[in-house]
Amino acid sequence: AERIRFILGEEDDSPAPPQLFTELDELLAVDGQEMEWKETARWIKFEEKVEQGGERWSKPHVATLSLHSLFELRTCIEKGSIMLDMEASSLPQVVEMIVDNQIETGLLKSELKDKVTYTLLRKHRHQTKKSNLRSLADIGKTVSSASRIKQPVRVLNSPHQPPLCKERLNFLFLPLSLMQLKNKFMKKLPRDAEASNVLVGEVDFLESPFIAFVRLQQAVMLGALTEVPVPTRFLFILLGPKGKAKSYHEIGRAIATLMSDEVFHDIAYKAKDRQDLIAGIDEFLDEVIVLPPGEWDPAIRIEPPKSLPSSDKRKNMYSGGENLQMNGDTPHDGGHGGGGHGDCEELQRTGRFCGGLIKDIKRKAPFFASDFYDALNIQALSAVLFIYLATVTNAITFGGLLGDATENMQGVLESFLGTAVTGAIFCLFAGQPLIILSSTGPVLVFERLLFNFSKDNDFDYLEFRLWIGLWSAFQCLILVATDASFLVKYFTRFTEEGFSSLISFIFIYDAFKKMIKLADHYPINSEFKVDYITHYSCACEPLDPGWGALGPERSAGYNTTIDWSSLTTKECLKYGGQLVGNNCSYVPDITLMSFILFFGTYTCSMALKKFKTSRYFPTTARKLISDFAIILSILIFCGIDALVGVDTPKLIVPSEFKPTSPERGWFIPPFGGNPWWVYLAAAIPALLVTILIFMDQQITAVIVNRKEHKLKKGAGYHLDLFWVAILMIICSFMGLPWYVAATVISIAHIDSLKMETETSAPGEQPKFLGVREQRVTGFIVFILTGVSVFMAPILKFIPMPVLYGVFLYMGVASLNGVQFMDRLKLLLMPLKHQPDFIYLRHVPLRRVHLFTFLQVVCLALLWILKSTVAAIIFPVMILALVAVRKAMDYLFSQHDLSFLDDVIPEKDKKKKEDEKKKKKKK
Amino acid sequence: AERIRFILGEEDDSPAPPQLFTELDELLAVDGQEMEWKETARWIKFEEKVEQGGERWSKPHVATLSLHSLFELRTCIEKGSIMLDMEASSLPQVVEMIVDNQIETGLLKSELKDKVTYTLLRKHRHQTKKSNLRSLADIGKTVSSASRIKQPVRVLNSPHQPPLCKERLNFLFLPLSLMQLKNKFMKKLPRDAEASNVLVGEVDFLESPFIAFVRLQQAVMLGALTEVPVPTRFLFILLGPKGKAKSYHEIGRAIATLMSDEVFHDIAYKAKDRQDLIAGIDEFLDEVIVLPPGEWDPAIRIEPPKSLPSSDKRKNMYSGGENLQMNGDTPHDGGHGGGGHGDCEELQRTGRFCGGLIKDIKRKAPFFASDFYDALNIQALSAVLFIYLATVTNAITFGGLLGDATENMQGVLESFLGTAVTGAIFCLFAGQPLIILSSTGPVLVFERLLFNFSKDNDFDYLEFRLWIGLWSAFQCLILVATDASFLVKYFTRFTEEGFSSLISFIFIYDAFKKMIKLADHYPINSEFKVDYITHYSCACEPLDPGWGALGPERSAGYNTTIDWSSLTTKECLKYGGQLVGNNCSYVPDITLMSFILFFGTYTCSMALKKFKTSRYFPTTARKLISDFAIILSILIFCGIDALVGVDTPKLIVPSEFKPTSPERGWFIPPFGGNPWWVYLAAAIPALLVTILIFMDQQITAVIVNRKEHKLKKGAGYHLDLFWVAILMIICSFMGLPWYVAATVISIAHIDSLKMETETSAPGEQPKFLGVREQRVTGFIVFILTGVSVFMAPILKFIPMPVLYGVFLYMGVASLNGVQFMDRLKLLLMPLKHQPDFIYLRHVPLRRVHLFTFLQVVCLALLWILKSTVAAIIFPVMILALVAVRKAMDYLFSQHDLSFLDDVIPEKDKKKKEDEKKKKKKK
Repeated sequence: AERIRFILGEEDDSPAPPQLFTELDELLAVDGQEMEWKETARWIKFEEKVEQGGERWSKPHVATLSLHSLFELRTCIEKGSIMLDMEASSLPQVVEMIVDNQIETGLLKSELKDKVTYTLLRKHRHQTKKSNLRSLADIGKTVSSASRIKQPVRVLNSPHQPPLCKERLNFLFLPLSLMQLKNKFMKKLPRDAEASNVLVGEVDFLESPFIAFVRLQQAVMLGALTEVPVPTRFLFILLGPKGKAKSYHEIGRAIATLMSDEVFHDIAYKAKDRQDLIAGIDEFLDEVIVLPPGEWDPAIRIEPPKSLPSSDKRKNMYSGGENLQMNGDTPHDGGHGGGGHGDCEELQRTGRFCGGLIKDIKRKAPFFASDFYDALNIQALSAVLFIYLATVTNAITFGGLLGDATENMQGVLESFLGTAVTGAIFCLFAGQPLIILSSTGPVLVFERLLFNFSKDNDFDYLEFRLWIGLWSAFQCLILVATDASFLVKYFTRFTEEGFSSLISFIFIYDAFKKMIKLADHYPINSEFKVDYITHYSCACEPLDPGWGALGPERSAGYNTTIDWSSLTTKECLKYGGQLVGNNCSYVPDITLMSFILFFGTYTCSMALKKFKTSRYFPTTARKLISDFAIILSILIFCGIDALVGVDTPKLIVPSEFKPTSPERGWFIPPFGGNPWWVYLAAAIPALLVTILIFMDQQITAVIVNRKEHKLKKGAGYHLDLFWVAILMIICSFMGLPWYVAATVISIAHIDSLKMETETSAPGEQPKFLGVREQRVTGFIVFILTGVSVFMAPILKFIPMPVLYGVFLYMGVASLNGVQFMDRLKLLLMPLKHQPDFIYLRHVPLRRVHLFTFLQVVCLALLWILKSTVAAIIFPVMILALVAVRKAMDYLFSQHDLSFLDDVIPEKDKKKKEDEKKKKKKK
Repeated sequence: AERIRFILGEEDDSPAPPQLFTELDELLAVDGQEMEWKETARWIKFEEKVEQGGERWSKPHVATLSLHSLFELRTCIEKGSIMLDMEASSLPQVVEMIVDNQIETGLLKSELKDKVTYTLLRKHRHQTKKSNLRSLADIGKTVSSASRIKQPVRVLNSPHQPPLCKERLNFLFLPLSLMQLKNKFMKKLPRDAEASNVLVGEVDFLESPFIAFVRLQQAVMLGALTEVPVPTRFLFILLGPKGKAKSYHEIGRAIATLMSDEVFHDIAYKAKDRQDLIAGIDEFLDEVIVLPPGEWDPAIRIEPPKSLPSSDKRKNMYSGGENLQMNGDTPHDGGHGGGGHGDCEELQRTGRFCGGLIKDIKRKAPFFASDFYDALNIQALSAVLFIYLATVTNAITFGGLLGDATENMQGVLESFLGTAVTGAIFCLFAGQPLIILSSTGPVLVFERLLFNFSKDNDFDYLEFRLWIGLWSAFQCLILVATDASFLVKYFTRFTEEGFSSLISFIFIYDAFKKMIKLADHYPINSEFKVDYITHYSCACEPLDPGWGALGPERSAGYNTTIDWSSLTTKECLKYGGQLVGNNCSYVPDITLMSFILFFGTYTCSMALKKFKTSRYFPTTARKLISDFAIILSILIFCGIDALVGVDTPKLIVPSEFKPTSPERGWFIPPFGGNPWWVYLAAAIPALLVTILIFMDQQITAVIVNRKEHKLKKGAGYHLDLFWVAILMIICSFMGLPWYVAATVISIAHIDSLKMETETSAPGEQPKFLGVREQRVTGFIVFILTGVSVFMAPILKFIPMPVLYGVFLYMGVASLNGVQFMDRLKLLLMPLKHQPDFIYLRHVPLRRVHLFTFLQVVCLALLWILKSTVAAIIFPVMILALVAVRKAMDYLFSQHDLSFLDDVIPEKDKKKKEDEKKKKKKK
């Protein structure tokens, strides 16, 4: 350990050694005649071996070794020639130096020199990857030449290359073969990667093994020695007497695995002598994980783990000292998940006027340019389409409801215009452009109450609303100026997840509610019997039964004569007729078709989204399908709808640009409608609106800015609120609805913009890199929303049930990965099936359940509240959640809470202090 | 190795040592005051540890050890006191003997005797399992007493026990506490299991560690030392100085893991001295599997593997010698899967007259009684319901088609009667009662051709058919007498899978075809607009337009006066009216509802079937749901259908017991209808029927009798065919359809009767034990089918689309696990995602694809054939599959074929001979 500390600690400021590509070549007889070096395995991080019969690379897997081979390797390093920093530039040179050295030290008889040299310079065959499609095309060829193919390995990998390849086999030392250059595997390696070549084999002329470990002074391209055109730095050679090929193979795997181990790799680069290498092996042996033979089948290839412990830990151990513990009791550091905003820079209170706002602007300004060019990706297109459809649907739904609530003082068109204008401005200038603004439930409830109040008291609704908006915006601006958003840090995981789960449940509930409403609107005739089709009818008849019989002459009161039987339902009712017949109240097919579309869209979206993790098709195709899952589902089910041709309700956007109500214009005059004292009194309801806006906006912002989203450009709580206030003023003057951040759509926005690493060592999991943070997608979404007024002819092909299906999908998808949901599922799971959550290892199950139970009770109360008129104080009740969470401090230990939730800032400090005190005591 | 061979080989005829339960107890301070032994982990095969904070058992996992701890353990065994075959009957006695021994050998200072004894006799606390439901119920209690619970462990596991438990803590040496007896964990242990107790801990009074390994002469119940009431055989004690608790813990885990290792466990029982134990540890170390630290995170708990290598291999190694190889190149023995009937006893040719038949009867007779009482299981009920519905649906479908084809000479009622009679008799007496008889496609095609031929040539169809049946039955009996069924062994996996996949595809295709037919029958009015409901009508009018207007007086030709408008569609057409209106040809809702039911039933069946592997609910509930998946789905969707109330087509079974055609009776007279030469000429078409019956019957029998189904009562190919022939005679005389084995339904029958082990060591996978082989389920199914005629009022609530959904499910489910399907999927998979199939490791991918491609071509040809009139030679073409497979011997190497298919018997022999020759050469 001392030695390792010394080796590793030595030149800490030198650059990290380059990544190694390790290749294991074995000496094998080809066609029973000549010996050749054949590549049998390779490593970047995990082992990939050449399947003996399969002529293909295995899946990357964890290299399981036998202890025996490691000890044999140790003996090899002890006994063989170790030549560090050899100066050589070609393989023959290297081989000669090794052989000479061995003869000098008496390890090799000089008469064997030629034979050994000859053997070591035999040609090398590499396993090259064939694309699957190619091999499909091969089938045809193979049929005709099937009986000829008998040699176990064919090196030719492309039909265009055979002459060159054959040549290559003869001219081993051609500096770089085309084949090496073409190797796709290079993409997996960083540019400065170096190679280590392991050569093992049995020969009949040796009586004792010939072992050499070489490190070259400079990495050198040794011709076709390596599969990929990477310069070789290390060489391990083991030639031994006949009969122990298997053992040599295992030793070769052992040294290759060691070379791909991060710590040994460092040691190999820095080693000064044989003892350093042996110390490296011993260190490796010390850290090795041992599986008992009776509990594991060595034939199973272990899949690479999802995450690996950092090797720094091991490296640092030589200064720290504590042992790594087996079986997963890592010290608690990752329990927090994505919370704990207490210490994040954006929420520090500055104490200065507008301090937070200024800091937000300063933080975001440098990214402003990149906020545009970062969007250049196909993924952005998919995100735009998906979010656009969600936004439009939302605008229509809320527009309709708002029109209902305010007798069309604000209607669908206002909703469209408002969404487009506010959204676009917000995305261009706000602190967190990933947030999508939208109308929300509480605002709707408030508008309804306000309208009724105005009507009852003969107030001018729009003017009254303008003043409330102005007051509320003013109050929001005060909150901005005083950095009030720092309060956000009291929103712990408990509050956030409670809120977002509730909003998701509302989404899901609303989707079903809309479908049921639709079913009510198009009732099915469940009494219908095929055979009685002649008995069903519906006819339009005039109210006065005599009328129709006497013909149209009597209807002189109308401008036109009426042919009652040719009237449509609407016309009939309009002209005062009545619908007579047992089939009038039923509508065939539409309800059932709607349900098919609804569930179909949902299921299809889910399935396509999951397609990313399926085994079929190449990665890019899968990723594309997964990215466009929702759009594809919408298209598919629009197609099915068009094919069946049933008259399902379609998306109808307004196509004319004028206020819904003819009584109002695009500008609301601030004075004249109401008595003067109303302008002042408006400040009181404005307070409610302010709380509502603040809570809705900031809690969504907190969820969007969670640590687990790995946002790099920082948040801007103050700036966000600033723009919400400004936009509120604009909306109030124009008589448009007010807008705040929409939780579910914002989460969907982020989900559709997630980035993952594309290249990594075989077997390594792609890592979540972060989100494409930019302003373009949001901006385009809202521009499109504005333009939708002119796109009515296209949009009218989209059936509403399809969009409700998308809503259902969004609601369910946003529940994914929420710890609260995980805990809810635990309630239904028997102990032995419960997943290995970190909190389950540390918190007793009944405490976990108690925590979940309390959360469920809170949400149930909120749900009930939301369903009553009291919905208006809904945002205030979310504040109550914070209080409940605070009360939990008395029910749960801080230890439990730290795993189940974030710790409330003060408590956190307290805890740290406690720890300090404890340390002092010691 | 020599020593181990000696230890293990010694008394080979002694009984195998009993299974061990190993418990690790550690000395921990409770409430910072007193020390207590607390159970922290346990082993039967895999490790289960007590989660520190969670107060619960972890999932069983592979015990990952550090090499360090194993070496430390080795040192412990080298240095500590080893006391083998100690004669003691209580813990104090044991402790005293150990302490005395240590003092004698100078390892322990005599003044520490009391302290050590006191420490070793401290009380023991065990982690006991709580049911999940209980802990849910606990929530209520915990809320009230939440602040009080602070001690880390609560021993009380049942509300009824507290007084006793507290008592137990005080009276450690109470022989058997109620708690031990009640421990559910006992179920996981065999009756003769013994315990090994590992006690490790740190104490402040020792300066050098106190180590003892004890084997008792007789296993003794040492009070509450062990969690479960199992006598203790081994004791490992390690007390050491303060400060290295973690290291002691790891050593304890190491010895416990060793004790649960099958080989070391044997050595421990047989060891004569310290050296034997050390040899055992060395053997373990030699076999150990090593994971490189950089490629694996020790915090990950490795799930127990699905299958484990038998420990016999390791034990035998000491006589054989070859090394186990890492990373999965097990010698090829498992490639065959479930084929290779070449050597199975049932298909040996006896060469004697009826030799095979007699052997079949002799083989099956002893099981006849058990064939009835083996059915006593709830699973049988589910199987009966499922197969009953499939059979009834099949009977109706084929009955309908047959009625169509033969102008009702054979109709639905004949189909029901035939199915019931033949099925019941077959299940009672046949060689393989798991086979379900049914009408099959080829038989149907033959009947259609035969009927047309008879009609064209003025033959009496039923009589002609009777003679063909008699001839064919006679020919079948000859095949039985000459043991011709031995030819079945030429059906390799290629033929079987080809045939069964084809039948499955036909099932799937038919399900969709029926749905489309249904949609055609109930067309949707895609032009329907809600607003124009008044324009749609359909009325019955007399052909003569004047008629209706003048009233019913003119229709004097009819017995009754006709009110045209009140007639139903059928009546209208019957009385010569016509349907007038734009809505007559449309039927609302039914098609869409049918599709909902169809896909719903399919999806629901699939989901419920998969529910077995879900994480929710206890195992028994999951198993029940999974077993009844299809019945549940049918009930659910019948419910939905009833709820919506749309008039979907329902299952209608005949309710009167008389021949469908009034022209025939229940007995067909053999003479009189046709000229005499027809009786002889019938032998020629009979030949075709014989081939058809033989192929259809035996290939299904082969599939049912596959090795992978682990049938224990043996097959009876000859007996089966015998009964098919006899039943054919009966059916021919009664004018009922002919019946052969139905592939898909038989597979479904087997699937619904699969058994798995119920108890196994925690972490061990349940093993597939075999199938409930009995005659009852089949028999009841057919009795129910017969009785169905009287159950029409209940069955009429089942919509046909639901049953088509079940058909689709059966078709898809029977494709599961077919290697051919796996290979088809490979075509779509990129190389790196392909699963680790054994043949992919040994056969080049393009050869695999070529094999798949040829199989697809064969199936496509068969499919085309089946769709034309040539369908009648379909069974002959399956013989062609055998020929194709034989031709493949020239295209593929025997090595490749042995992995992709079974080897054809002769070739197999040849191969063996080749191998022998090779060996001779050596």
